[in-house]
Amino acid sequence: MMEASAVFGEYVVVKALENGVTIIGLTRGKDTKFHHSEKLDKGEIMIAQFTEHTSALKIRGRAQVFTKHGMVECGD
Amino acid sequence: MMEASAVFGEYVVVKALENGVTIIGLTRGKDTKFHHSEKLDKGEIMIAQFTEHTSALKIRGRAQVFTKHGMVECGD
Amino acid sequence: MMEASAVFGEYVVVKALENGVTIIGLTRGKDTKFHHSEKLDKGEIMIAQFTEHTSALKIRGRAQVFTKHGMVECGD
Amino acid sequence: MMEASAVFGEYVVVKALENGVTIIGLTRGKDTKFHHSEKLDKGEIMIAQFTEHTSALKIRGRAQVFTKHGMVECGD
Amino acid sequence: MMEASAVFGEYVVVKALENGVTIIGLTRGKDTKFHHSEKLDKGEIMIAQFTEHTSALKIRGRAQVFTKHGMVECGD
Amino acid sequence: MMEASAVFGEYVVVKALENGVTIIGLTRGKDTKFHHSEKLDKGEIMIAQFTEHTSALKIRGRAQVFTKHGMVECGD
Amino acid sequence: MMEASAVFGEYVVVKALENGVTIIGLTRGKDTKFHHSEKLDKGEIMIAQFTEHTSALKIRGRAQVFTKHGMVECGD
Amino acid sequence: MMEASAVFGEYVVVKALENGVTIIGLTRGKDTKFHHSEKLDKGEIMIAQFTEHTSALKIRGRAQVFTKHGMVECGD
Amino acid sequence: MMEASAVFGEYVVVKALENGVTIIGLTRGKDTKFHHSEKLDKGEIMIAQFTEHTSALKIRGRAQVFTKHGMVECGD
Amino acid sequence: MMEASAVFGEYVVVKALENGVTIIGLTRGKDTKFHHSEKLDKGEIMIAQFTEHTSALKIRGRAQVFTKHGMVECGD
Amino acid sequence: MMEASAVFGEYVVVKALENGVTIIGLTRGKDTKFHHSEKLDKGEIMIAQFTEHTSALKIRGRAQVFTKHGMVECGD
Amino acid sequence: MMEASAVFGEYVVVKALENGVTIIGLTRGKDTKFHHSEKLDKGEIMIAQFTEHTSALKIRGRAQVFTKHGMVECGD
Repeated sequence: MMEASAVFGEYVVVKALENGVTIIGLTRGKDTKFHHSEKLDKGEIMIAQFTEHTSALKIRGRAQVFTKHGMVECGD
Repeated sequence: MMEASAVFGEYVVVKALENGVTIIGLTRGKDTKFHHSEKLDKGEIMIAQFTEHTSALKIRGRAQVFTKHGMVECGD
Repeated sequence: MMEASAVFGEYVVVKALENGVTIIGLTRGKDTKFHHSEKLDKGEIMIAQFTEHTSALKIRGRAQVFTKHGMVECGD
Repeated sequence: MMEASAVFGEYVVVKALENGVTIIGLTRGKDTKFHHSEKLDKGEIMIAQFTEHTSALKIRGRAQVFTKHGMVECGD
Repeated sequence: MMEASAVFGEYVVVKALENGVTIIGLTRGKDTKFHHSEKLDKGEIMIAQFTEHTSALKIRGRAQVFTKHGMVECGD
Repeated sequence: MMEASAVFGEYVVVKALENGVTIIGLTRGKDTKFHHSEKLDKGEIMIAQFTEHTSALKIRGRAQVFTKHGMVECGD
Repeated sequence: MMEASAVFGEYVVVKALENGVTIIGLTRGKDTKFHHSEKLDKGEIMIAQFTEHTSALKIRGRAQVFTKHGMVECGD
Repeated sequence: MMEASAVFGEYVVVKALENGVTIIGLTRGKDTKFHHSEKLDKGEIMIAQFTEHTSALKIRGRAQVFTKHGMVECGD
Repeated sequence: MMEASAVFGEYVVVKALENGVTIIGLTRGKDTKFHHSEKLDKGEIMIAQFTEHTSALKIRGRAQVFTKHGMVECGD
Repeated sequence: MMEASAVFGEYVVVKALENGVTIIGLTRGKDTKFHHSEKLDKGEIMIAQFTEHTSALKIRGRAQVFTKHGMVECGD
Repeated sequence: MMEASAVFGEYVVVKALENGVTIIGLTRGKDTKFHHSEKLDKGEIMIAQFTEHTSALKIRGRAQVFTKHGMVECGD
Repeated sequence: MMEASAVFGEYVVVKALENGVTIIGLTRGKDTKFHHSEKLDKGEIMIAQFTEHTSALKIRGRAQVFTKHGMVECGD
């Protein structure tokens, strides 16, 4: 069972500015491969944590990405 | 039993600006799939935590989403 | 017995601006369903914590909701 | 025995602006019901903690409620 | 034996502005009843902690109450 | 043996502005009674900690009391 | 199993300003060699954590790199 | 053996403004009595910690007392 | 196995301003010798952590080095 | 063996403004007596920690004493 | 094995302003002697941690030394 | 073995303004005597930690001493 204190860690917020924005989770661990991908349509928001399975996120398409380092525009 | 210190972790606030705003919880863990979805009508507010079952939230429809990275408008 | 350090965690404040404001607690855990609902009349205040049984709150009706992300007007 | 570090957690301050202000403690746990209610007369102050038995407070009547989210007027 | 780290927790300061200001300690635990009451004469100061026996304080009479939420006038 | 980390906790500073200022320690625990009283003459200073035996302090006479909530004049 | 508290550690954000930006993970440990490399096209964003397998990142191509030391332009 | 982390706790600084300033340590524990007294001549400085034997300090004579609540003039 | 909480510690950012910038890791431990060296071409960025094998970094060539003590120009 | 985390605790800085400034360490523990005394000549600096043997410092002679409560002139 | 949490502790940055700047590590422990010395040429940067073998650094030659107490010019 | 978390504690920086500046380490423990002394020539810098063997430093000669209480000129 994962430790509960991890449940409420870091998260980023992605807001799609067009249809078909893709958020791809890459696996944590020895092998780094695609873990999960999620599609967002225009205006949809995704709030995503890093988890024990996901150590990197790749974002494609016009979107605003809100992180602890500020807001970064994706896909311009 | 989950550890109590986790009970009071991160939460986000969603305010619906139209009927039918949808908040979808995605499962934490190896498989990422829909876990729960909740509908909000215009003016309703949802305050949602990440839990040991939910590691991502997807929001659809016109709404204001309040997070630690600021307020993000959904669905414009 | 729950750990005492959890007793004094996060709380939100809801102030009803009309009769019949509803605060609904949703269960934490695998199944997400209604756990408890509370009615507030105009002017009444509810101060509510997240608990080991409640991981989300849904609020209906005209109210002010005070959270760590600021004050959000409900039900306009 | 409860852990001492919990003894000095969060508290809110309620100041009654009229006679008969009511502060109702709701139980923590699976069942959410009335746990204790306290009456304040005009000008009286109550300083109340959340405890291992109380996870929510409901306040009725004209009062000022001081919380970590600021002061909220009750009962107008 | 209570844990020493608890000895130096939260405290509030009450300054009586008239004779007969009353500070009532309410018990922590399942039953909430009067635990102790202390009288202050005009000008006297009481500095009181929450303890493993006291989870709420009720104050009556003209007094200034200094808390982490600021100073609140009692009994006007 | 008490835990050393407690040795250096909260303290308040009392400065007597007249002879005969009294600082009374009230016991921590089930029974709340007088534990110790100390007299200060004009100009004397007392720096007092809460301890595992003292959970409340009562101050009588003209004095300045310095606490984490600011300075409070006693006995005016 | 890795400890969950590590799951939500430091991350950097890389935004590609041209096609073919490369992010190379170098292994943590006695031997330092390539661990994983990821290509970004113009406008894509990568959010990457250090992990128990990756202790250094090398970035090639025109990109903006957001870190706790500020934003650094890559590849000019 | 006392725990080392306690060795570097709170301290106050007393500067004598006349000969014969007295700093009296009062015992921690059930009985509160004189533990130690130290005389300072004009211009001398004493830097004193609370210890597992000393929970209160009483200062007599013209002196400046530097504490975490600011500087307090003694003996004027 | 190294403790996960170490995985996300301090890192520095090096941006090469010319070809052939060298970053040399020196070993932690009794003997201090070269552990690893990495070459950067103009515009490339390296984000490097201290690890259980690397306790010092030596940088050669024209570069900007971003650290918690600010940005330092290398190789002028 | 003393715990290493204590090794880097609080320290004060004393700068002698004349020859013969004396810094006297007083023992921690039940008996408070002289533990060690150190002489400084004009212009010399002493940086001294509290230790598991020293809980108070007494300073004589013209000196500047730098503490966490600011700089205090000794011996004027 | 050393504890990983130590791996990412304090570091200082040294920038050589001339050839032949020397950074000498002195051993931690009972005997204090030379542990390691490193030469920097003009413009080179060294980022060095304190380790379980190095408790002091001595720097010779014209250099800028960046520490948590600010930047100090060496060798002028 | 000393605990690694202590390795990166407090340090002071001494910059010699003339030849022959002396930094003397005094032993921690029951007996306080000279532990180690280090000479600095003009312009040299010493960065020194307190260790489990050194609890006080004495500095002689013209130097700048950078500490957490600010910079203090030695030997004027």
